[in-house]
Amino acid sequence: MAKFRINILGCGSATPSALHNPSCQVIDFRDRLMMIDCGEGAQVQMRKMNLRFQRLTDIFISHLHGDHCFGLPGLLSTMALHEKGGAVRVHIPQQGMELFRSFVNYFCKETPYSIIFEPITGEGGVLYEDHALTVEAFPLYHRIPCYGFIFREKPKTRHLDGEMVRFYNIPVSQLKAIKEGADYITPEGDIVPNSRLTTPADPSRSYAYCSDTMFDERVAQAVKGVDLLYHEATYGQECEGCAAERGHSTARQAAVIAREAGVKSLLIGHYSKRYRDFKVLVDEARTEFEAVTGADEGLKIDLL
Amino acid sequence: MAKFRINILGCGSATPSALHNPSCQVIDFRDRLMMIDCGEGAQVQMRKMNLRFQRLTDIFISHLHGDHCFGLPGLLSTMALHEKGGAVRVHIPQQGMELFRSFVNYFCKETPYSIIFEPITGEGGVLYEDHALTVEAFPLYHRIPCYGFIFREKPKTRHLDGEMVRFYNIPVSQLKAIKEGADYITPEGDIVPNSRLTTPADPSRSYAYCSDTMFDERVAQAVKGVDLLYHEATYGQECEGCAAERGHSTARQAAVIAREAGVKSLLIGHYSKRYRDFKVLVDEARTEFEAVTGADEGLKIDLL
Repeated sequence: MAKFRINILGCGSATPSALHNPSCQVIDFRDRLMMIDCGEGAQVQMRKMNLRFQRLTDIFISHLHGDHCFGLPGLLSTMALHEKGGAVRVHIPQQGMELFRSFVNYFCKETPYSIIFEPITGEGGVLYEDHALTVEAFPLYHRIPCYGFIFREKPKTRHLDGEMVRFYNIPVSQLKAIKEGADYITPEGDIVPNSRLTTPADPSRSYAYCSDTMFDERVAQAVKGVDLLYHEATYGQECEGCAAERGHSTARQAAVIAREAGVKSLLIGHYSKRYRDFKVLVDEARTEFEAVTGADEGLKIDLL
Repeated sequence: MAKFRINILGCGSATPSALHNPSCQVIDFRDRLMMIDCGEGAQVQMRKMNLRFQRLTDIFISHLHGDHCFGLPGLLSTMALHEKGGAVRVHIPQQGMELFRSFVNYFCKETPYSIIFEPITGEGGVLYEDHALTVEAFPLYHRIPCYGFIFREKPKTRHLDGEMVRFYNIPVSQLKAIKEGADYITPEGDIVPNSRLTTPADPSRSYAYCSDTMFDERVAQAVKGVDLLYHEATYGQECEGCAAERGHSTARQAAVIAREAGVKSLLIGHYSKRYRDFKVLVDEARTEFEAVTGADEGLKIDLL
């Protein structure tokens, strides 16, 4: 199946530490790379994980707290030194866009690639679309405007059964329609049902990213039915009050959202540095939802 | 002797790599910390080297290339979360000061300490002065306006010989003058020469930082006679042309400056990533000047 891989470059909260880097993920979708959040040190993590700057086309910034965006100037500068071509689109909440653009443009005056800033506004909506993928933003509920992102593969066509295509000697001009579900009508007028000519399309996979947000059931609605949900789990239940006050979630709350949204699996991260080992948060989440993975730097998850 | 220690937090050039962090040093002068340059990752390096945010009072930025200042927003944000009090002065070349200040102020709105930006202009001059230390900026010769810094301990007073003070029963009111070199006149009118009452003052130590700069003899004039000179040595002699073109120096050139300036020892750094092992640059420098040390992350040098 075509590659749809989530790379974890950083999964700590607030400040880089010996344990974790600040937030950063890279989606590798059919060898095109798209970054979500860009905490300080993202460029070094990219190199450590062997993710090539040349292939990075889009960066999505969830909100304007430093641990989600301070790696951006360094990353964009370094890509210039690596003679990256083409363009990089930086999708960033409108509130700080001009400031960020001025800052980056000052330091990256002569890049061999274009840096295009695109504001995320209002309720979000579709930020990116091509023949195979859409990326949408939707609101999260944090202390400042903050967005989640859904990467959704478009519906795919059915697989042709080569043997049957040869058997019926089907002209090439018909194949597109058959892959899209049409029956085949022979020159003699016989109808060959599509199910004899094709096997089902691969499922369309989806990934949702939710960091930072307090517990809010609107998030479950927004990410309904995705295959993999990343939801922040900054704290454990013992800090539920503190989580709410700071606009964050507990591991148990992340799992409740996963269950209510009917996702296949849950990935948690954005751990407070008070947790030396995030296993305690994974265990807490599993009391509400079975399929939980804890994010960790260097982790790669392939959507299947 | 009172502490005057140079901590190396980063000594690479251009981009952070697996080998080296971008430029950053912290001067620990009598337990007050002053940072020179602040490449990405400086805050993590501070913690790794056990340098306390609380004690940091001044940051000196040599020039506005990203590898010398992109760590600043993250460092200043993190210090806020660590509830640092007091103030931090950021001395920064005037050209980009407003832009940097706007950016930092956007992200560090509610710090429990003050962030004071102070421009470095024209030929530099004294940026900082207290009873024991001055910090001066002077021009370097790079692609954009760039400054070197000299940390100069003020002349110290002589040491009293306690036994002699007691022997002559010298009143406390006289001691300050004697430490500054005065003789003592007894109530009987006898003159006790200062040399019998004191031992010589500790030498006043000095440290000069020069990164980034092309080879220029005016630099040797500016740093004349310092105890320790840090001079960039981005390249080896085989890249002399490239060094000049990019406004950098070779290891041999750094050593020539050290010799011409008559410094006691030379510290080199800002290594191009083409050198997997900086020993080759240290060896090259030693062909011109004997006392050469190669900077490396984690290195601490005490001026004696």
